[in-house]
Amino acid sequence: MWFQKEVRLPAVTRGFHLITDLLTAQLPELEEIEVGLAHIFIKHTSASLTINEDADPSVRQDFESHFNHMVPEKQPYYRHTSEGPDDMPAHLKAAMLGSSISIPITKGRFNLGTWQGIYLCEHRNQAGKRTVVVTLQGN
Amino acid sequence: MWFQKEVRLPAVTRGFHLITDLLTAQLPELEEIEVGLAHIFIKHTSASLTINEDADPSVRQDFESHFNHMVPEKQPYYRHTSEGPDDMPAHLKAAMLGSSISIPITKGRFNLGTWQGIYLCEHRNQAGKRTVVVTLQGN
Amino acid sequence: MWFQKEVRLPAVTRGFHLITDLLTAQLPELEEIEVGLAHIFIKHTSASLTINEDADPSVRQDFESHFNHMVPEKQPYYRHTSEGPDDMPAHLKAAMLGSSISIPITKGRFNLGTWQGIYLCEHRNQAGKRTVVVTLQGN
Repeated sequence: MWFQKEVRLPAVTRGFHLITDLLTAQLPELEEIEVGLAHIFIKHTSASLTINEDADPSVRQDFESHFNHMVPEKQPYYRHTSEGPDDMPAHLKAAMLGSSISIPITKGRFNLGTWQGIYLCEHRNQAGKRTVVVTLQGN
Repeated sequence: MWFQKEVRLPAVTRGFHLITDLLTAQLPELEEIEVGLAHIFIKHTSASLTINEDADPSVRQDFESHFNHMVPEKQPYYRHTSEGPDDMPAHLKAAMLGSSISIPITKGRFNLGTWQGIYLCEHRNQAGKRTVVVTLQGN
Repeated sequence: MWFQKEVRLPAVTRGFHLITDLLTAQLPELEEIEVGLAHIFIKHTSASLTINEDADPSVRQDFESHFNHMVPEKQPYYRHTSEGPDDMPAHLKAAMLGSSISIPITKGRFNLGTWQGIYLCEHRNQAGKRTVVVTLQGN
């Protein structure tokens, strides 16, 4: 069984945002899969997806702080500067975190660990809605 | 053909550990798949999985040294500090390396390159056993 | 439907290189898949794959500059130095970017965003051809 759909995510501020519940609500088809895989792919180059701790909001704040520290704006070696100081760091962060995540499906649900949630990582200061392609397969 | 199981990995010290043989030994079902994919997912937010050089142990030591340098403990901007100085860096490292790996299956085996092995990346000082969900599919 | 093949990529200079068109040209089987997934896996530990901006070559130059800054050569803590100063950084960069990418297939094509392209990330100064295993599945 294959199922694929595009999901539009709401525009969010720069930072790391939990989207587990929002995505699950859009995917009633999950319940039809006993064993399978979910693939979630973001069609952008300055936002990304990852999986991490979903309980304490300070974790997500520290993600934003640390990624800004590790991938600073206005580095003297950047040449791609025409789209603003947040643009090139956004591309780098997106590549480091990745454009897709894959999650096992077990008994109709994402088989995540107790503390795992899905993050939308928005690396631009002013971004619109983002689109993800969700592909579910299994039987 | 779909096959899915949880595998408990032994508790290890903080650092990067080869688990290719240990995993393969738990997956006799691999031999039934001529062409397919293996997906290995870790159900934790402070440990991760990656694929890298499996021959020289000094590579894995250098991974630990460099990740400690790039994601230091006790950064002044960390707010999530209640679980110890190794906790927030562990979350960041886990996101950078990723919660899952996917490997092609060819003729009943992981189709890895000559020097590739699977790493369990343990980012906490004191962690217990870790659980991975392995999903094999193919025909 | 499953399809798997190894593709040899031409040797490239150290840096980040667009390979979307080159790969697509090797994969006429894509057209047979209405809904599915493409998995591309590199069988090496000092080169990697990622997806990012495919329009402006300065983005790829900045990737090389920033990764060199974030993962420098000749760090005093490196022990794995026998294969040259570019070797250990190459392993670290490869793990950070990853050994595989997965892309949704929709109506016979990679379902990439407008600005997304596939990068071959070559982290060694002198490398030969690189091999990727492409696994397509869907129906």
